[in-house]
Amino acid sequence: MDISKEFVFSDKIRKKYLKTERGLEIPFKEVSLENGEKILLYDTSGEYFDNKNPEIKKVRKEWISNRERMTQMAFARKGIVTEEMEFVAKREDTTPEFVRKEVASGRAIIPSNINHPEIEPMIIGSKFLVKINANIGSSAIVVDEEMELMKMKVSIISGADTVMDLSTGGNLKKIREKILRASCVPVGTVPIYEAFERAKRKIEKLDFPLFKDVLIEQAEQGVDYFTIHAGILKSHIEKALKRTTGIVSRGGSIMASYICSSGKENFLYTNFGEILDILEKYDVAISLGDGLRPGSIADANDEAQFAELKTLGELTKVAWEKNVQVMIEGPGHIPLNLIAENMTLEERYCFGAPFYTLGPLVTDIGAGRDHITSAIGGALIASLGASMLCYVTPKEHLGLPNLNDVKEGIYAHKIAAHAADVARGNKMALNWDLLMSEARRDFRWEDQFALSLDPQLSRKLFEEGGKNREKGEDFCTMCGPDYCPMKITKRLKKVQNHTLT
Amino acid sequence: MDISKEFVFSDKIRKKYLKTERGLEIPFKEVSLENGEKILLYDTSGEYFDNKNPEIKKVRKEWISNRERMTQMAFARKGIVTEEMEFVAKREDTTPEFVRKEVASGRAIIPSNINHPEIEPMIIGSKFLVKINANIGSSAIVVDEEMELMKMKVSIISGADTVMDLSTGGNLKKIREKILRASCVPVGTVPIYEAFERAKRKIEKLDFPLFKDVLIEQAEQGVDYFTIHAGILKSHIEKALKRTTGIVSRGGSIMASYICSSGKENFLYTNFGEILDILEKYDVAISLGDGLRPGSIADANDEAQFAELKTLGELTKVAWEKNVQVMIEGPGHIPLNLIAENMTLEERYCFGAPFYTLGPLVTDIGAGRDHITSAIGGALIASLGASMLCYVTPKEHLGLPNLNDVKEGIYAHKIAAHAADVARGNKMALNWDLLMSEARRDFRWEDQFALSLDPQLSRKLFEEGGKNREKGEDFCTMCGPDYCPMKITKRLKKVQNHTLT
Repeated sequence: MDISKEFVFSDKIRKKYLKTERGLEIPFKEVSLENGEKILLYDTSGEYFDNKNPEIKKVRKEWISNRERMTQMAFARKGIVTEEMEFVAKREDTTPEFVRKEVASGRAIIPSNINHPEIEPMIIGSKFLVKINANIGSSAIVVDEEMELMKMKVSIISGADTVMDLSTGGNLKKIREKILRASCVPVGTVPIYEAFERAKRKIEKLDFPLFKDVLIEQAEQGVDYFTIHAGILKSHIEKALKRTTGIVSRGGSIMASYICSSGKENFLYTNFGEILDILEKYDVAISLGDGLRPGSIADANDEAQFAELKTLGELTKVAWEKNVQVMIEGPGHIPLNLIAENMTLEERYCFGAPFYTLGPLVTDIGAGRDHITSAIGGALIASLGASMLCYVTPKEHLGLPNLNDVKEGIYAHKIAAHAADVARGNKMALNWDLLMSEARRDFRWEDQFALSLDPQLSRKLFEEGGKNREKGEDFCTMCGPDYCPMKITKRLKKVQNHTLT
Repeated sequence: MDISKEFVFSDKIRKKYLKTERGLEIPFKEVSLENGEKILLYDTSGEYFDNKNPEIKKVRKEWISNRERMTQMAFARKGIVTEEMEFVAKREDTTPEFVRKEVASGRAIIPSNINHPEIEPMIIGSKFLVKINANIGSSAIVVDEEMELMKMKVSIISGADTVMDLSTGGNLKKIREKILRASCVPVGTVPIYEAFERAKRKIEKLDFPLFKDVLIEQAEQGVDYFTIHAGILKSHIEKALKRTTGIVSRGGSIMASYICSSGKENFLYTNFGEILDILEKYDVAISLGDGLRPGSIADANDEAQFAELKTLGELTKVAWEKNVQVMIEGPGHIPLNLIAENMTLEERYCFGAPFYTLGPLVTDIGAGRDHITSAIGGALIASLGASMLCYVTPKEHLGLPNLNDVKEGIYAHKIAAHAADVARGNKMALNWDLLMSEARRDFRWEDQFALSLDPQLSRKLFEEGGKNREKGEDFCTMCGPDYCPMKITKRLKKVQNHTLT
């Protein structure tokens, strides 16, 4: 994929900033339609909008320097509306006060490390647009810093709301620094990976002091949320090892190894208070990892999974006492008929903290197209209340995704997230669909391209029907002119009054 | 796409025939695993299994010649188990008597024209595996007979359970004949298209006698099911024209035009009895067309749609009186939160007749990847009881699909159908997923490829991780050797007894 040739937007789509009361500039994509209508779309692309190599703005720099060091949750609970809250309120077409209330209650989070001024704030919660995360990062056997940066860029341009740097190979700190300084969306990590690296991948050398050092360094760098597998306990492991596919979370399997090897309890659980103190200081949100998520349909909704979920709920309460923002990670491989139970129990056990799910994948046999199996489950669980979907790429179960895999993974999950927004009755989402359908009805092809999730692709596929076809012709190669129902309907509307009496 | 290079199955996958009591030979794909286990998978590929150009067998020839001419429903109601019923019972791992009862009740159909001996019988009903249909056929501006035949072949090899020839351009009879004689799966058509062609695409020239001629000719040729838009009535049209996207069904818009132009009622409705007489004679199943399916989220579940659905229910009863097998076509564009109501009302209004849906597409803005928007809705509605999904390709709304679009459309909907089978608790489907997950756990890569829905693709994506990698290595490029949770779990199982006390 040559990304300089991708994402060439039509001149119908422009960057537009709306100002808030305090004068903050909130980014949107403005699509101008042939009939004079305009629509503002949520935009994650930041300075990468036009696919150039921009100078990255430090959007939050002034805000942070002018305030006391507290978490967004602490501010919210004190009744203070931060710039971040005002920013996301405008992005989501709601009021700052509503945002504040949701953050105060823990039902929504604004991941925004005080040392990550580059981000355009975004919110994750069930009352807001459904978000998606793209996992990027090197692996032990594939290390290419520039490629991972490129993946970040493709992710952001394609619509990822956050990225997670899951690097486990190469110079972790350096690659993370590059990603953080170039990213206008929140960045998440799984610090246990770096701790494990520093322990030379020897489980006996892993301990809390080592982990704590990593945590402080990453927080200092500006990571916005940490996945921490504090919920996997000694008492869960036997249950998990009985399963068809055991433990399929990398972090979960590392902590299980630690527990088995040391005979001790999970040090992330026993030192949770100290972890929270660090997170609070930098306002790093915690993403409570689901180390025991099911890795196969056979293991879905089992004892091990829900035992851990209950523990995550206990930890949520503890974190909230320290004003640390929390989200809960969710499965995994779950059949369609068991998805609703996941959402119900997460809400019950975790007191409404945002649910951040990996899929779920609704079958095990989709290798090669697991972005689709995941989009199916993701759309359903988000329509029921999940707040963010972690993407899955076509390479899932097979290898590290390349640029194209990243793009396909993102678009599949953008579809899932948007479909859930529509199902949740989000007005911005419904209006977008409406304008698209009106453009379709009226044969405004350029408007249709501009309004589709992937304008480049929809135009390309349309043009495969014939390169010399004039714009504005009122049919496509599917039906041809005489069988086009839209065209026939148009005619009918003109004559209906004469005949339908 | 060079299809001679596609679908090169591994030697782990072979064709296997099981014999029934009566000696019928029922086709499966047998996958032999490294651990000695075997699994039989449902197989639609017929003689195309090895992607050669086979001589097509006339599987049903003898069965038909030895019996009275009655429909499958008539036989079932008389308590007679036909060869077709025995055939599908074995395919679905159930009893012939169960199949007979389902067909007798109208809850399932076996589309099988007495003049289409080439098909391997299959059943469509909520108690059986979810099926998928692939639409192929020329359009007025793209006519390529060989290409459409190729699409049929790709469809069948990829797993389409039926194909619909929706040709509206070129020599319709000739292309249909080619498809019928080469197809081992049931073939559906929309006869009003040919009638409209014969009327020189002039609505004033369209009438029932002309339609009837077409119907008889197509039934005589061997078409297994007809989509007939008999449910769109004069009283519905005003409701439909008020919508955002009006009428988006080609057949529906033709009939609406007829009604508006003539001032008369839909002749498919007024002559329904005569239509049924023809269908009964050849045992052509009727697929009651949803001419008023919503074409946008804004129109979903509206008055027009459900008024027509109610009419389809009335027609179902009439058809059953003549022992004509019936399925009901469904939407269309429906948001996730309104899908369940479609299934509920279809079951209520149409007395449990199989529901055959186009998607539903869960958002309007997916152009370019509408196979995914459709797979999401399709998976959900099938998990709730729909019997067959009509595929949607990435070209939907943009143009006529090419070979690759057909393939992508099919696989997306195979995923949806299988995910629904899993959710419905189908034992064959659950076992397939289980064996896949066990192969994954045990790092049997060749088994994983063979067990994935698309063995070629999963192998190809895996091999992108490194061409020289030896088979059988126990990790992939995603995690590398030290972070592989499956590998770690494996080790843990060995040590757990020592440590977890």
